[in-house]
Order: sequence, then C-alpha cells, then structure tokens
Amino acid sequence: MELQSFFNPQSIAIIGVSHDRHKVGYLVAANMVDQGYEGKLFLVNPKGGTLLNRSVHKDIKEIDEPIDLAILAVPADVAIAMFPTLAKKKITNIVLFAAGFKEVGDAEGAKREKDLLEACSKYGITLLGPNCIGFSSNKSKVNATFLKHVVPAGNIGFISQSGALGSVMVDEFVARHNLGLSYFISMGNKSIIDESDALDFLAKDPETQVIALYLEGVVDGEKFKQTLARATLIKPVVILKSGTTEAGSQAAMSHTGGLAGDDSIFSSVFKQCGAIRAATYVEFTTLLHMFSYDRVPTSGSVLVLSNAGGVGVLLADELVSENLSLVTVSNRTKNELTKVFGDSKKITVHNPIDLLGDASAFDYEKAITSTIQERDVGAVVILLTPQANTEILETAKVIVKAQQGFDRPIYPVFMGKDSVQIAHDYFQEHMVASFRYHDYITHAIGKAVRYRDYLSSHAGHVDHFPDSEVEPAVVKKITSILNKSKERPFLDLEDSLKICELIGVPVAETILAKTEKDLHDAIKLFKYPVTLKIASKQITHKTEVAGVYPSLHSHESAEEAFHNLLAIKGADGAYVQKQAGGYEFFMGAKRDANFGTVIVVGLGGIYAELFKEVANRVFPFTQAEFISMLKDTRMHKLLSGFRGHAPVDMGLLYSCVFRVGILMETFPQIKELDINPLFVLPDEVRAVDARIIL
Amino acid sequence: MELQSFFNPQSIAIIGVSHDRHKVGYLVAANMVDQGYEGKLFLVNPKGGTLLNRSVHKDIKEIDEPIDLAILAVPADVAIAMFPTLAKKKITNIVLFAAGFKEVGDAEGAKREKDLLEACSKYGITLLGPNCIGFSSNKSKVNATFLKHVVPAGNIGFISQSGALGSVMVDEFVARHNLGLSYFISMGNKSIIDESDALDFLAKDPETQVIALYLEGVVDGEKFKQTLARATLIKPVVILKSGTTEAGSQAAMSHTGGLAGDDSIFSSVFKQCGAIRAATYVEFTTLLHMFSYDRVPTSGSVLVLSNAGGVGVLLADELVSENLSLVTVSNRTKNELTKVFGDSKKITVHNPIDLLGDASAFDYEKAITSTIQERDVGAVVILLTPQANTEILETAKVIVKAQQGFDRPIYPVFMGKDSVQIAHDYFQEHMVASFRYHDYITHAIGKAVRYRDYLSSHAGHVDHFPDSEVEPAVVKKITSILNKSKERPFLDLEDSLKICELIGVPVAETILAKTEKDLHDAIKLFKYPVTLKIASKQITHKTEVAGVYPSLHSHESAEEAFHNLLAIKGADGAYVQKQAGGYEFFMGAKRDANFGTVIVVGLGGIYAELFKEVANRVFPFTQAEFISMLKDTRMHKLLSGFRGHAPVDMGLLYSCVFRVGILMETFPQIKELDINPLFVLPDEVRAVDARIIL
Repeated sequence: MELQSFFNPQSIAIIGVSHDRHKVGYLVAANMVDQGYEGKLFLVNPKGGTLLNRSVHKDIKEIDEPIDLAILAVPADVAIAMFPTLAKKKITNIVLFAAGFKEVGDAEGAKREKDLLEACSKYGITLLGPNCIGFSSNKSKVNATFLKHVVPAGNIGFISQSGALGSVMVDEFVARHNLGLSYFISMGNKSIIDESDALDFLAKDPETQVIALYLEGVVDGEKFKQTLARATLIKPVVILKSGTTEAGSQAAMSHTGGLAGDDSIFSSVFKQCGAIRAATYVEFTTLLHMFSYDRVPTSGSVLVLSNAGGVGVLLADELVSENLSLVTVSNRTKNELTKVFGDSKKITVHNPIDLLGDASAFDYEKAITSTIQERDVGAVVILLTPQANTEILETAKVIVKAQQGFDRPIYPVFMGKDSVQIAHDYFQEHMVASFRYHDYITHAIGKAVRYRDYLSSHAGHVDHFPDSEVEPAVVKKITSILNKSKERPFLDLEDSLKICELIGVPVAETILAKTEKDLHDAIKLFKYPVTLKIASKQITHKTEVAGVYPSLHSHESAEEAFHNLLAIKGADGAYVQKQAGGYEFFMGAKRDANFGTVIVVGLGGIYAELFKEVANRVFPFTQAEFISMLKDTRMHKLLSGFRGHAPVDMGLLYSCVFRVGILMETFPQIKELDINPLFVLPDEVRAVDARIIL
Repeated sequence: MELQSFFNPQSIAIIGVSHDRHKVGYLVAANMVDQGYEGKLFLVNPKGGTLLNRSVHKDIKEIDEPIDLAILAVPADVAIAMFPTLAKKKITNIVLFAAGFKEVGDAEGAKREKDLLEACSKYGITLLGPNCIGFSSNKSKVNATFLKHVVPAGNIGFISQSGALGSVMVDEFVARHNLGLSYFISMGNKSIIDESDALDFLAKDPETQVIALYLEGVVDGEKFKQTLARATLIKPVVILKSGTTEAGSQAAMSHTGGLAGDDSIFSSVFKQCGAIRAATYVEFTTLLHMFSYDRVPTSGSVLVLSNAGGVGVLLADELVSENLSLVTVSNRTKNELTKVFGDSKKITVHNPIDLLGDASAFDYEKAITSTIQERDVGAVVILLTPQANTEILETAKVIVKAQQGFDRPIYPVFMGKDSVQIAHDYFQEHMVASFRYHDYITHAIGKAVRYRDYLSSHAGHVDHFPDSEVEPAVVKKITSILNKSKERPFLDLEDSLKICELIGVPVAETILAKTEKDLHDAIKLFKYPVTLKIASKQITHKTEVAGVYPSLHSHESAEEAFHNLLAIKGADGAYVQKQAGGYEFFMGAKRDANFGTVIVVGLGGIYAELFKEVANRVFPFTQAEFISMLKDTRMHKLLSGFRGHAPVDMGLLYSCVFRVGILMETFPQIKELDINPLFVLPDEVRAVDARIIL
C-alpha cells in the first residue's frame, strides 16, 4: 500500500470543523495550524464563517483545488454518507475519527463497519481508522490528531493501537529536548490501513530511525510477520503489546494448547522477526530513547563508573541478572588508574569502578579517559548521586565531551530529582541518552544487544529449510487413518504413533494386547524391559488413572500390570511397548488463529505441564532458530551434554520437529498434536506416546 | 542499645567546623542551622572566630554545659586522639565522618579500626560511623549530615549503608510534598552502632511509620534476624540489598553450596522475618510512598478504572503476572454502571473498566461511586492518560474526595509529564499515593499484600518446633563415624546414609559389594529391582562417570552393571541398594557465615542443578514456614497431589528436614550435607544418596 501522499499530503480538508474548543472539529484544526502545516488547508462546515483566522467552506464542493487528504470530524453515519461526494472530488485518502463501528461489539456497530468497508471498496478509499485519533507527520508538519499538544519533532515513528498511549508519549516528549516523533499513527479499527501497512511505510521512511509499535492484536498474521521481518533488517522495531495473560483463561485439550498461549506466540513471532519486545511502557520509552539518539551498545559487556559504591553494585547485580557482563578491567588500566589518582584517593579499580563520594568532575574525566578504551567495552554506564560537593553540570560536560569522541554509548545515570535536572537537560541537548534511575537501562541494553545479534545472523542471510514434500503414498495412508477416526475428537496412541512413523519420526514399536496371550506374544517379540499403557477411547490422561507401567522386567510384574490396567474403567486393552531410554522431550504443534502452525518443544514426561520448560516458534523455522528456541529453555543445556553425557544430534531432533510442522501444513484436519515423551539419546530419538487432536 | 539521647540530643558540639564551603566542617554546621536545630549548638575549631553568626569555641574544654552528642568533622587520627578529652567532658555519643579505617582494606586501615574500637570500649563510647555521612532526626530538627539539602520532614525512617543513597532519596523527596524522613541514619563502618541497633530504635520510634533499609551486609546475623522479626510485627520494613550476584562466583563442593548463595539466604531471612525486599531503587521508593501515606492494599484483589482501554489491559497483565487478581464486577454493579452512564456512553463494565478516551471528571466520579464498594476490593487503581478533553485536576479532586471516605487505597496513575504535574501535586498535598506509570505499583501491591499475610499469620503467634534433642547414644555413634573420617573431606555414601538413619531419616538399605558373591548375597536379601552405585573415595559426582545403574531386574543386568562399575578408575566396589520409588526430592544443609544453618529443599535427582527448583530457609523454622518454602518452588504443587496422585505427608517430610537441621546444630564439624535424592511417596520417604562434607 502506497501511503506517501496519505501521510504527506500537499493539501488537506478538515470536514466538520467547530468553534467549540472541546470538540474534535476544533482541536484537529487548531493542532494543524499550531503544528505549522505548510500545505494547503481547507476547513469545512455547513455553517461557514471563519475559524482560526481562516474562512470556513460551507461545502467540500466549493473547493476547486485538488485535495490529497480529507479528515472527517463528523459522526459515523454522516461520514459514510459523505463518501460519494468525496469520491466525486477524487478524494481517496481519509482519516475517520468517529467511533460506533465494530469496536462497540453490537449488531449496529457491525453493520456500520460492513457499510464502511463496502463504501471504501466501492470508491477505492484508503482509510485510517475509524475510532482513531488520527496521525501526525513531522516531515509535512501535519497534525491530524486531537492530541493536547503540538507533536514534538523527532525520529521515532510511533504506530499505536491506542490513541491514549500517543497522548502519554507526546505529553512526556514535550518536556524533553531532542526527543520526538517522525510520525504518530493511531490505528483505530484498522478497517483499511493496518499495522503492517503503517510498519512498511515507516520502515522505508528515511526520517524514521526507530519504529515504536503498540499492539493489541494483528489483522493479518502472515502479512505482519513478513513485514516485520523486513522492517527489522532496516531499523529497530520496539513493540509494546498488551494481553499477555489472556492465554490462562482458555481451556485446552492438548498439552500444546495449554503450553503455547496466544501471547507467547506473539512473543515468538517478535523473536523470529527480530523485533524487540518491551515489557512495560517505561522500558518501551527507554529503548526508544537509546535508539532515537543512536546510542546503542556494541556488546553486552558493560563498564560502570560511579561515585557511590553501593549503587554501582546494585547496577552490577541487575546487569548480571540480565545476562550481561561486567568488563574485566585489565591490569594495565588498573595501573593507569592508580597512577592518575595517586595515593591520596583510593578508588576501587575493578568494575564497577567506585570514584568515591567526593568525586569531582575532573575525577570522572580522569577515570573515563583511563578506562573507556578498554578492550571489549560494549557500553559505559556512569552513575552519579548528588552528594555534597558533586559537580553535577561539570560532570555532565565531561561526559558529553567523552561521548563525542567515542563510538560506543555512554549512558549517564544521574540519580535524584531537583539537583540533577540541569544535567539531564544538558545531555538531551547533546543527544546523550541519560536516565534518572538504572532500573530499566539494563533490560534495554540486554534487548538492544540481542537485536544486534539478530542482525548479524540474519542480515543478508537466506533461510534454509529441509525438504518439505510428503510423498503421495504417505499422504494417502495418513488420510485413511485420519478418515477412519472421523467421529472421534482425537486419535488413539496406536494411530497417532503410526502417523508419526509415516512422516519419519521414529517411534517405539507398539502392540495392542487384549488378552494375556497377546501380552506374552508382544513381550516375546520385544524382550524385556517393556512398558504397558492403558488403551482406551475414553481416557485422555493416562498417568492420572495410573495407566502407565514403565520398566517391566519380568512375567510376574508384566502380568500384574496388565491386570491392573484392564481393571481400570474404560480400558479396551493394554499397549505393550519396548522400553525406550533417554531424555524425555516434549514436541507439539497447534494452529494459531493469527500465525498458523506453531511448534512447541521442551521438557517432556509427566512434569511437562508442571515446569512449563517449553518454547514455541511459528513454523517454518531454520535449525539455527530451533537451537535458539531450545535456548529459551533449560533443555538446551541438558541436550548439549549435561554432566558428562554425550550431546544430542540436534540435526536429527530438528528434522523430527520440522516433519511435524510439515504434517500440520499438509493435513489441515489435524488441530493439535502432542508427542510426549519423545525419548532422546545422543544419536537416536523415539516417540513413545503421542496424541493427535482433530 | 539505648539511642534516644544519641538521635535526639539536647545539646550538640560540632568539632572541626570550617569556613570552607566545600568542607564537611562547614556543610554539617550549615545543615544543622538550616534544619532549625532547637537544642544548644556549639561549634568548635582551634582558630575560634565566628561562623554562621555564631561564635566558635577554640576548645571543647571551654564549654561549661553538658554535651549530649559530639560530631567529629576531623581526620581519623585526630578524632581518636580526641577521645580522652571527650571522655573527660562525659561525652559518650559520637558521630565520626572520617574515612581511613577498615573500609580501605589495608593494614593501616585495620590498625586504625582496632585503635578506634579499643578507644570506644575504654571510654564507653556509642559511635555512629566512621566513614559515614551522619544522621538526621526530624523530631529534634537535627541534621548531622553533609547532605546537599535540608532533610524533608516525614515518617520514613531510613537506615542506609550508603550515604550516596541517602543523598538520592533526599534529593527526590525535596521535590515532593508530604514525603520525607523521620530519621536518616548513615551506617558507615558500623563499628559500634550496627544496623540492628538502628532498626530497633526506629521500630520503637512513634514518629516512624515505615522503615527503609539499604543493606550490603550485616554485622551480626542472629541479632539482625531477631531484631528484624520483632520490627516487622510493629511496622513495615522495606529493604533494598545489593550483592545478589556474588554467589555465582564461589565454587561449591556440594549441591547445597551451589544452590543457596549468600544473597538468596538474605532473601530467605527477609521472608522468614516478614521484611519486604524491593528489587530496585524505584520499587523501594514506591513501597515507601505507599506505606508513608498509609495507603496499603487490604487484599490482592484489584479494581482498575481507566480512560484508555489498552493501558488498562497492560496493567491487568502486570497484576496477573504478580499473582494478583482483578476484582470480578458483580452483575448488580454492572447494571448500576450501565444505568448511570446511560445509552449514550458505552463503557466497558468488566474489570479493567474502560471509561473511554473522552471520560470527564464526572464520569470518573460516577464510575468510582458505583464500583469501589464492590465486595473484595483490596485496592483500586485509577489510570488517566492526558487526552484532549481530559479534566486532569478535576479528576484528581474527585479521587481525593473518594479516597477520604474509603478505607482501602486508591492509587491514581496519571501518566505523562507536563500535563499531569498539577494532579500529582494535588495528590501529595492530600496524602494520596499517586504514580506516573504503573510499572512498579503492581510489584508494590503484591509485596504489601504478602506483608499483610505475614502479619496475620505471625502476629501474636508462637512458633512450634518438634522435639530437638539427639539422644546421647546417637550422638556417640555419629561422633565415632565422623571421627573415623577425619582425614577425608567428605563421608562416603555408606557413612552418610548411616548418619541420616541415626538421626531418623529413613534410608534405603545399602550393602557394599566388592565381589560377585557380595553382590548376589545382597540381591538375595533385597530382591529385585536393585540399584548399583559406584563406591569410591575419589569420585565426587557419580553420574558424571556413569556410576549409577538404577532399576536392575535380572542377574544378567546386575552382573553387567557390577563389572562396568568395577572397571571405572578409582572404584572400590559397588553399593547395592533396594530400588526405591517416588518423587525425587532434594534436601541439603549448609552453614552460612551470617546466619548459621541453612536448609535447602527442592527438586532432586540429576536435574537438581539444571532446574534449580529449590528454596532455602535459615534453621529452625516451623512446618508452616516449610510449606511456604516449598511454595517458592513448583515442588509444592507436585507433592500436594499432582495429576491424580495422592498428596505427600508434609509432616513426615518436615520432620526429616528438621532432623537434618538438628544434626547440623549438634555437630559443628559437619560443613555441608546433601541428600539427593530422597524418594518421596505419599506416606513414606527414603534417602538413597547422601554426602556429608566435613
């Protein structure tokens, strides 16, 4: 979608302007004038007259000149009725503020939304909204919003599904220097322009250095995923998303359903596409601040200088808990520090470096000069607490000077309020990203470093996937198994394992025993040890009915287990399996409404749901992504050679995971799939239990 | 230690005053005058003259009147040399700023510290410092610090091991209304007055509503623990502690050592004593703010009102992730809301309640009136984003009015900066705890609720412990086992289990087999299945050398295992055990330098260190505390009846844990102990592996 003329129009008509200072029709006109829009601006209201020293047109028809954008500050029904007239004037770009559409959640709203979509389609209209608060463009000095303020100019492009959050950000940026928005785009109902369109526009926009995205959901998952992956290769995309806890409220039939909630899938998509997810609003703005000033760490190795030892240690704690590291100060630098400070001032020369409470600006300068060239410094944090003789502004000047000759970021954390304001103003004037507290910068540094890592492994890189064809003969066999199970909501163990085997996932040999003779025949075939499991069309959770007997080594114990199983209500027999060994791995797949097939892997066995040591990714993904997925859990450490064991063949494991994905893509009738456990040995895997939900 | 006359002296002498405005001797005198000290103030400097319009005494001897407190703004050696003179004047309360003592870490510093302690002891001196920045007392208008500001008056008592953090807090509070300190006590080296003395003083002080404590370590763990437990029953104690990551750097011989780092033991002490640990400085001040204004949630059930749906959902996400809940709005209230808002304004009537972007102060008022009396409301959060027509101050007034007639806290979160400042000022004037962002209040609400729960289960409650005597005969037996192992750093499996058995922890029968005959004799005794484990005086981690063969069911497999074990380098034989079953539980004990015996429990087996699903507590603790300890891990869910299994007898498990504690208390020669795993069945436990480190 081409949105250049939409967001940077040469001429604008605001329809429904008003003299009432509380009305949207006044606010948007006043904002447009106050922002200093340089194109042609037409105000329209049937009453005519003047407003803001401009004459008001009674009708859009009066205007002879071409209009690039119409802003409708009129009620919903009036707006839709106006479309034919606008179309006649060849106006196809429209901002619609009005609410009363699908967001209301009633029949009337749905009907209105439908009418709107039809009208847009009929007249070829590109629409922002409805139920939005408009947009602003720094390039063209457009302020098509009813925000409280002129939007501060800057290089952050903010796409928001909440107008309110735009008002918060603008309110905050107004009080700062050199921090502002290239574009603010309030999405509203996203009836035509959706988040992906806006994202694509900002990704290509040269004035936007970083994209900020507040999201509650997406219109088109696949489109979003592709747009996001392209955008992050060009510039950072920082996302704040609400709705993390919805998942818990949904009952799920399979483990996979319960283990991969909607929001965790969004998180996975953000990871897969290189976006940075902020946990809170303040973390969001902290990241935007860093990227806007282009103060981005080059590695997770941080040097800390402070005039308060304890606070330095608090920060160090936070860095380490974010998996960042403290730069090791070399002996050369330690000697240098000892030399420049001399005997009179006994500073701490290991990182965090404590310059003591009486540190002067000159002390800071000496310490900075001696240390920042230390190898491996990815970022520097300089803490200052306002003590009796602290030279606040002078120290700020020292830091700005140091930053100007240094290619890695220096983050001043000047704590407190009144005393340090002057320094923060100075930092902003000189585009140094400074903070009042260190609470969020550790998270922000960690996330910025992970984005950097993403870029270095993805930029210019083409994804490789394994062969993804399922042979026609196999398709036929699987289809026939699926068909015969049509009346049941899930396949039994035998059929589920058969399908796993057909797609190439090794499975434990399984025989259904209904009689003691069956049992002994199976044991003769498999040899001890064996596992017995209840076979039942009714029972969903085997372990909860004591329906699994592993590690049977004798006729005596096997027979006892067999009789116990048959005595369970609903038992149709017992499955006999050759006992498998190894780590118990969980592997599942589900369909997500937004993003399609999602794969879940992690700790298997009966503790899978207790420990929830799992991760998910949207299919397909590469083997490298599979490894990074495992690293989201402690399974990676286990599988890569835990306590002297041989590491597991990750290629083999990945190929199983990939085949499950292909199964899901090939057979839309499969809703969910659990393989739990898949026994994993260094060079062998074997599924011993599986369930396919239709 | 009686500190009333120390912190509220009738007369003060400042020794070493100075005309140099950068010197401590000037700053402290000026602060004392500026703070408005009402007692008698004497300034002393050999040069005499006048300072701050007061005459300066040349010598302390010149002063005829009694002096309650001397503040020494002189170098370390000068200070110590002055003690005899001070003693002659009967001055026993001293504040010493000077550095140069043990904190320097060299021999000279240590010597000076020793001299200081001797002088204090000789003259019976109560000393604050050295290496501190003094203290302030709001009651007596004492400002014996060299902070930048007059200390704002208030009801927060702040004990800080970092002077710098005091300067930050004061700088921040200066900019606020109605938020300040009853006392600020900078601890310095804690050579005489330690954190427990200061804590005890503030706990009993009627002007202190909440105690804030910044800690890096403690002087006397047992004294601290007891003082803290007493203090939290009187008023909340909020602690910020640095040094969370030190633990990782220490190598540990046992699992317990690695699983219970120093800082996690501090966390446990805080929990056991009912203190609230803040994770960051901002969370620290957020909690202080709530407690200072006495706006404390009565339960974790929160009602949210907002004029921004998305932000309301973000907050709801954070509440749920903090294990808090959203109040369920009753149908009656929903109807009431629908009625008062009428058809024209379709607000969301479930919690979080969305009053929409155009919400007026009157809308907020209607919604508050209709909802806050809802049953189960433990706290109310009212979000406001500064949108075009938002009535910021008016809404603040509505909230203050509502709070004044309501017994539970209402927390306004007015987001943004410039526009909402006026509202925050208004809130502070009326002692309503308001915030700019909701980032920290969810943590703060959660922690305040947990403190409330602690109080309700501990106030007026006497702890019950099991019988703790070890019979003399048992002591004798254990001593002889310990003595025979004197040359080794740890006991072998057999001896370790024998000791467990002697103290009353059931163990698996274990026989050391050196020959095949031994093996078969043992198997004949135990019957299959059995476990074989390597016996070795050299090998510390059995699983890492493949030294464990569980679930052996046949002569064939047992013999094979036996030969494999004997082939391992360093093998002295193989232990044969009857195979035990159940959940694998970890139980350990270690000695902490500060707090003595620490017990660790959690997930056992080979994954204990991988998943670190463990918790620790300082011994002794009650069964209730043991349950709360298990709840820190997911083991509690597992043991209390996971997926249809019978729940475990917690009394039985607790008695084992307690006996391990008694063992540690009785035998100081035991350094650490691991039992891993202890197999746990509903009504039976059995230790199958143990190691005692001497």
